[in-house]
Amino acid sequence: MRTLRQSMTALLLAAVTVTSGSALAGSQDSLQPVVNAGDKKLQFDWPMLEIGTAEYAEGPTGVTVFRFARRALGAVDVRGGGPGTVNTDYLRLGYNAPEVDTVVFSGGSWYGLESTTAAATALKDDGERSGNWDNISLSVGAIIYDFGDRRLNEIYPDKRLAQAALRGAQPGVFPLGAQGAGRSARTGQFFGCNVHSGQGGAFRQVGPVKIAAFTVVNAFGVVTDRDGKVVACNPGANWPQPLRPTDLLAGMPDSRKPGWQPPKEAARNTTVSLVVVNQTLEPALLQRIAVQVHTSMARGLQPFATEYDGDVLYAISTGEVDDKTPGALTSVDLGVIASEVMWDAILSSVPEQPKAFQPNKRLKVAAADLQKYAGEYKFSDIVSVKVSAEDGKLVAQATGARDAFAIKKAAAVELQPVAPGDFTVPGRYPLNVRFADGKLILNPGHWQQIGVK
Amino acid sequence: MRTLRQSMTALLLAAVTVTSGSALAGSQDSLQPVVNAGDKKLQFDWPMLEIGTAEYAEGPTGVTVFRFARRALGAVDVRGGGPGTVNTDYLRLGYNAPEVDTVVFSGGSWYGLESTTAAATALKDDGERSGNWDNISLSVGAIIYDFGDRRLNEIYPDKRLAQAALRGAQPGVFPLGAQGAGRSARTGQFFGCNVHSGQGGAFRQVGPVKIAAFTVVNAFGVVTDRDGKVVACNPGANWPQPLRPTDLLAGMPDSRKPGWQPPKEAARNTTVSLVVVNQTLEPALLQRIAVQVHTSMARGLQPFATEYDGDVLYAISTGEVDDKTPGALTSVDLGVIASEVMWDAILSSVPEQPKAFQPNKRLKVAAADLQKYAGEYKFSDIVSVKVSAEDGKLVAQATGARDAFAIKKAAAVELQPVAPGDFTVPGRYPLNVRFADGKLILNPGHWQQIGVK
Amino acid sequence: MRTLRQSMTALLLAAVTVTSGSALAGSQDSLQPVVNAGDKKLQFDWPMLEIGTAEYAEGPTGVTVFRFARRALGAVDVRGGGPGTVNTDYLRLGYNAPEVDTVVFSGGSWYGLESTTAAATALKDDGERSGNWDNISLSVGAIIYDFGDRRLNEIYPDKRLAQAALRGAQPGVFPLGAQGAGRSARTGQFFGCNVHSGQGGAFRQVGPVKIAAFTVVNAFGVVTDRDGKVVACNPGANWPQPLRPTDLLAGMPDSRKPGWQPPKEAARNTTVSLVVVNQTLEPALLQRIAVQVHTSMARGLQPFATEYDGDVLYAISTGEVDDKTPGALTSVDLGVIASEVMWDAILSSVPEQPKAFQPNKRLKVAAADLQKYAGEYKFSDIVSVKVSAEDGKLVAQATGARDAFAIKKAAAVELQPVAPGDFTVPGRYPLNVRFADGKLILNPGHWQQIGVK
Amino acid sequence: MRTLRQSMTALLLAAVTVTSGSALAGSQDSLQPVVNAGDKKLQFDWPMLEIGTAEYAEGPTGVTVFRFARRALGAVDVRGGGPGTVNTDYLRLGYNAPEVDTVVFSGGSWYGLESTTAAATALKDDGERSGNWDNISLSVGAIIYDFGDRRLNEIYPDKRLAQAALRGAQPGVFPLGAQGAGRSARTGQFFGCNVHSGQGGAFRQVGPVKIAAFTVVNAFGVVTDRDGKVVACNPGANWPQPLRPTDLLAGMPDSRKPGWQPPKEAARNTTVSLVVVNQTLEPALLQRIAVQVHTSMARGLQPFATEYDGDVLYAISTGEVDDKTPGALTSVDLGVIASEVMWDAILSSVPEQPKAFQPNKRLKVAAADLQKYAGEYKFSDIVSVKVSAEDGKLVAQATGARDAFAIKKAAAVELQPVAPGDFTVPGRYPLNVRFADGKLILNPGHWQQIGVK
Repeated sequence: MRTLRQSMTALLLAAVTVTSGSALAGSQDSLQPVVNAGDKKLQFDWPMLEIGTAEYAEGPTGVTVFRFARRALGAVDVRGGGPGTVNTDYLRLGYNAPEVDTVVFSGGSWYGLESTTAAATALKDDGERSGNWDNISLSVGAIIYDFGDRRLNEIYPDKRLAQAALRGAQPGVFPLGAQGAGRSARTGQFFGCNVHSGQGGAFRQVGPVKIAAFTVVNAFGVVTDRDGKVVACNPGANWPQPLRPTDLLAGMPDSRKPGWQPPKEAARNTTVSLVVVNQTLEPALLQRIAVQVHTSMARGLQPFATEYDGDVLYAISTGEVDDKTPGALTSVDLGVIASEVMWDAILSSVPEQPKAFQPNKRLKVAAADLQKYAGEYKFSDIVSVKVSAEDGKLVAQATGARDAFAIKKAAAVELQPVAPGDFTVPGRYPLNVRFADGKLILNPGHWQQIGVK
Repeated sequence: MRTLRQSMTALLLAAVTVTSGSALAGSQDSLQPVVNAGDKKLQFDWPMLEIGTAEYAEGPTGVTVFRFARRALGAVDVRGGGPGTVNTDYLRLGYNAPEVDTVVFSGGSWYGLESTTAAATALKDDGERSGNWDNISLSVGAIIYDFGDRRLNEIYPDKRLAQAALRGAQPGVFPLGAQGAGRSARTGQFFGCNVHSGQGGAFRQVGPVKIAAFTVVNAFGVVTDRDGKVVACNPGANWPQPLRPTDLLAGMPDSRKPGWQPPKEAARNTTVSLVVVNQTLEPALLQRIAVQVHTSMARGLQPFATEYDGDVLYAISTGEVDDKTPGALTSVDLGVIASEVMWDAILSSVPEQPKAFQPNKRLKVAAADLQKYAGEYKFSDIVSVKVSAEDGKLVAQATGARDAFAIKKAAAVELQPVAPGDFTVPGRYPLNVRFADGKLILNPGHWQQIGVK
Repeated sequence: MRTLRQSMTALLLAAVTVTSGSALAGSQDSLQPVVNAGDKKLQFDWPMLEIGTAEYAEGPTGVTVFRFARRALGAVDVRGGGPGTVNTDYLRLGYNAPEVDTVVFSGGSWYGLESTTAAATALKDDGERSGNWDNISLSVGAIIYDFGDRRLNEIYPDKRLAQAALRGAQPGVFPLGAQGAGRSARTGQFFGCNVHSGQGGAFRQVGPVKIAAFTVVNAFGVVTDRDGKVVACNPGANWPQPLRPTDLLAGMPDSRKPGWQPPKEAARNTTVSLVVVNQTLEPALLQRIAVQVHTSMARGLQPFATEYDGDVLYAISTGEVDDKTPGALTSVDLGVIASEVMWDAILSSVPEQPKAFQPNKRLKVAAADLQKYAGEYKFSDIVSVKVSAEDGKLVAQATGARDAFAIKKAAAVELQPVAPGDFTVPGRYPLNVRFADGKLILNPGHWQQIGVK
Repeated sequence: MRTLRQSMTALLLAAVTVTSGSALAGSQDSLQPVVNAGDKKLQFDWPMLEIGTAEYAEGPTGVTVFRFARRALGAVDVRGGGPGTVNTDYLRLGYNAPEVDTVVFSGGSWYGLESTTAAATALKDDGERSGNWDNISLSVGAIIYDFGDRRLNEIYPDKRLAQAALRGAQPGVFPLGAQGAGRSARTGQFFGCNVHSGQGGAFRQVGPVKIAAFTVVNAFGVVTDRDGKVVACNPGANWPQPLRPTDLLAGMPDSRKPGWQPPKEAARNTTVSLVVVNQTLEPALLQRIAVQVHTSMARGLQPFATEYDGDVLYAISTGEVDDKTPGALTSVDLGVIASEVMWDAILSSVPEQPKAFQPNKRLKVAAADLQKYAGEYKFSDIVSVKVSAEDGKLVAQATGARDAFAIKKAAAVELQPVAPGDFTVPGRYPLNVRFADGKLILNPGHWQQIGVK
């Protein structure tokens, strides 16, 4: 009888089986888009705003496309230290002309910008927009950095994936958590928290005015709630509970607070965001809302707008409700409320973190089984892991260009038994390890990485 | 025997006697600069950074001049909806050349920009800088809006006042609270808190690295501490205690939270800030620190960067410590720490609020005394108050172009007796009223306004 | 015996035969990239700078990719009224870090931005760049508008085309005229000149310093030489010769100068440019060169930077020659010389204009032949032309969504005989018409459009 | 009988007699503003636009104030390498609200920015604007660098001078040439032309639309006419006539063209400009006109926008003619026409250059006369000249901190006799020298500098 674990593993493997070799290939042609995935979804009533996501599970990485049923007025605020953007210059000109068709957020760092241009060309290829200057499709977008030590391959959201997302777009539904562009997002590296993150969204209606906020949170800082607490973190030893950014920040730059050490290295991070309102606004006031809301995010993400972030926020007015309509909001109130909606969105981006396997000291794995697991597993052209059985123990060492999470190139590490087929490398960032069907699965589950012999 | 009250009043009046007619005159020539005033001061060790303040007590309004002993590298980040600035364009060019001599913050809205240019010309007039292109004085600056209903006249910091501040500059001392450019600052109008504010400063040394942050807090939003509480507010009826911005904001846009009402009107506000570091930084990284620190202020001021703010932040590197020096900070750490120092500075800006007079129901004022107080008192060309004795009560009504705080033009209001010569108009924004030496003093004390018959 | 004309036509047709149906299809998959085409080429010695072009003859439209053998420092100046750009925000941050791999110019308006992102992903797909933050590929780019009345279809440079250009890139060769991104460029619409344009390039070496300038001239204004004369124009009736922008501009806004009338309508235009130097420059000085050179282009293109242009200029420093090297130029001299090189580049962009067929009044076409030509020819989903024989004459009328150059939808126009199979519609913008192999070829030659029955 | 020369000299001296000591004093209090001076004036009919100039003849230096009878909408374009500006940030926000009261241009480099703030405070001091947020005065401005080797003192336009200009403002009159802010302007240093320059203005009415352009031309480059010729230059030896920028630029970077040498040193220059239209325009389109016109100036000034320029252009819409009015212009046409008007303005800025004294070899000056001229003449705290009689010749040497034009500190130079009391130092930049009333007058006439013993 298959255990639940086995069933789940089979299911997870099935999802990637057909394309399991893809991460090795260089070409992404065989990868299958997974459209609008996710269990937890924000639902709201706004036909003008359609949203689609698509993911390559093998990354995992993905893209989120926001499409407006009719062209909308746009503004942008760029604040991060390493932004990747498309067509922001046009938005900055301040014309009072609605022209934005789509806003596209993507993983894959600068390679993911292909998703933004793909959304425009898809609308043309599909015959919904032409090349005539009064009917051309304007797509704007931004990306997050989800490479580096976030995953063991460099698959990126490409034209095909973005067009799948666009064509799957539907109104009123937005997947929350590690989905779409936020599929492999992470937060908190500044403090060494290094937790999985994702995309968040929130919606509020005030009289006739609809306000939606979306954000792909891949911040160097930590997600902070309205009580001043860190929402998710792999804490350091002896860190206080509850954990507050204020306390961590007070420890800067050295461990004046017990147990805290600054991170030794840094890499790219990004938070890309979108505010949509249905009220008409002059370009200067829409720009003001972009500035105000983007600035306000420094409350929910701490620190924010650092050199290692690439923060970008788009603001869109669909112009359905005239600003002279009774119940229309002043731009100040709109900016303030939208800032709160954005904080809600930030909070909703945090996915449930995976449970760490617990080593079972009493479990003895038979030598034959150990030998069965041994071998070299390839995750991608850049990461391989060699598993060996030594003295009744299983050890692993990375053999490619990079480390495989807690399995480093520098030295072999023991895989401690958890259950038949399951092992763990404990630590601040514990690594769940599973052998199944001749494959090596690191972090089995939503963020799993599969190595094949 | 003079009471303490009488003594204090005499003292306060003395301070303005020689120039008491000034607010009436149109010309500001007779006003006397008060240099480096204030009881509460930040002290720190940094010879390269000299600070001077000067105030016209009759405003009250003032100016704060930061002068660098040797020219420094500068950057600027402008985020507010109504900024007033000088020479920001030059800073934006990104040259790696230290050229800033002074940063000047001033009250007086756009008129106060005269303070910035005055600092440059003073250095030339004093022979410290010439007109030669390699020795010319670059002064940059920004202003706050301290007119409107903040005070009853439109005196502004002028060239003479700014030059007094410059010439009085000294290292290592910065007056905290309602001094210098923050002399008539106010915060919290967005929520109707309407409390006195001021200028704040903080300093931190980390190994060889010195970081100072200064800010003149005249924000539309409220000052918020690290526990998420509003630091100062004239609360509405039934508002919760402790008061949190989070709760107030959650009540937007209508009183979903008990007792909170949105403000009915808005006007100009501004927070102008300065970060100074002694470490060398490339222009791009100094700019990054400006962006990061300015953004971080959204935590300590809520809301921030609205249409009715005019927020500007300058960042200066004095370049005394090479960034290769052991102990020098990465730009990320520097930005994070400077953001915390800035939050400290924000918190230090809040002055002790004046005590409201308490009406004494049992006190009966003799008719003759009432009659003695009657008359029309002029505060400036724009504000006069007519005091009348009616039915044994004293009533007051504004007769000029504008209201006089709680004494409105629309209708007479009773001045309720407190003590001999002292009265009050109670309310959410209570008005302390004193008659002394034939003058009418509103809010006697640090922010007093004096009307003469 | 085949005439030369027949041979050339056959050749021209052959080039597009295999894909002649493509413009009809919606998908561009069957189009064949034509790489590095063009007879007239700028040649220069600079191994660090590789250039590739690729075109779809069926558009015609194309892309030009500039690739740096090692990552280079970049800056950008955006001045036009309708720019389409990728990754300019990153360049604006002013970091002193060489990171640009490619600069991509493309036709196809906003759809052509796919070419920019394609260059980045091609470098990754080819294994030359990874996703790691220190080895990621930064591609920046801009596009021109070559739709509208420039050609009879809306084919755009896509990922496949751009990658063909990138992979075909070679040092030291740059095709001049209507090639690459400038394949369907046009200039002079503001004055109604409406001539074919293209891409220009120029190179100068001064001591150790190499300077190259490239520009895709698709300007609303006219190309102007150093003697103040218009280089190419379809002149209005009675226009003076030589034609000078100064005279045309003096006629604004009405025909104060004989014969000149302002254009009745306007559409999108763009000039996108690149300056490359091998000398190191601080970011601020590289930015200065971008500003100075871009501004200087107002001499060679008149008018320039209008609302209907989308001008963008990138400046790149490959950093091969240290600015302390003997013979290195000051940034001012560099900017001035580069501006002259850019003017040379502008002048080199003008292709030889096609010769207009001359109607032959004596030529009588047999009725059978006329009938043979009759029919409805489809050029793309948006343009079809119906040819009919009436009263011994051949007439044509556009039947699709848009006009076919001088063959309008509004009314049929006579095709006047020129030679067997050749006809013309004379006028300010004469249309050469050829029937060959059952196809209708408008403007046979470099810019030909082919309609099939 | 007094000769004409003597009469003129007396007149010139009289103009500065009362304040002749001022340049020595450090304080500028004794200087007398000369308001609206100049013989050559642009006249036009536009009551909404008032202009005033004021100068200190002792500099000479001055200020030009443009005042709008009712608040106007503004935009700004900053392009130069060293701009000095006030309140540009506010203009950039793009609000559709007319708020500009005055645009102020001034000499005096960064010190001259005092003129801009002075215009605002003067309107308040005069009671025409208040401090209330809906009636506050917004003044924007920019400066030119007229120090260095342009004149022998460092007098700058101060608050008093600017307010004199503001109060003297009148509609429809603009002094052309070396007046107002252009009083000591210079052009052509890049080529070593080094000629006097000034302020230019031009006006055109097209149907109901009024367009005015003003510019203070202090460019590093040369003024160029529509025939491509340099308008004014002190040419190098053997330079071709007519002189064309194109030929000079073609000689870059070394003397490939006969006789041309690049300048050995550089300093600050600036061209500050203003376009005013009476038609309403959305902020984005007014901004577009600023960009387009500013860019177009590269034709009339070559080179333009270099590192050593500080170019700034303001665009103002007075909003008197609605853009829906018959005859209103499209923003493109408006931008094109305004660019031509600006070129006219540039050309009108060039003053008549002073005539060089011709040495009279036959003239023998009596030894007693020579001795009478001997002595040390002080021009300012930074420049003095010692004149000595040696061997029957008169020689001069600068003895202060700087050179006095052709009279250098390095070595004495002979003053060659011209006429009684008149001498010359011939050369590419000839220096006219006159002794009168015990004073030493360099360049007697409009730009004279007076030294006193």
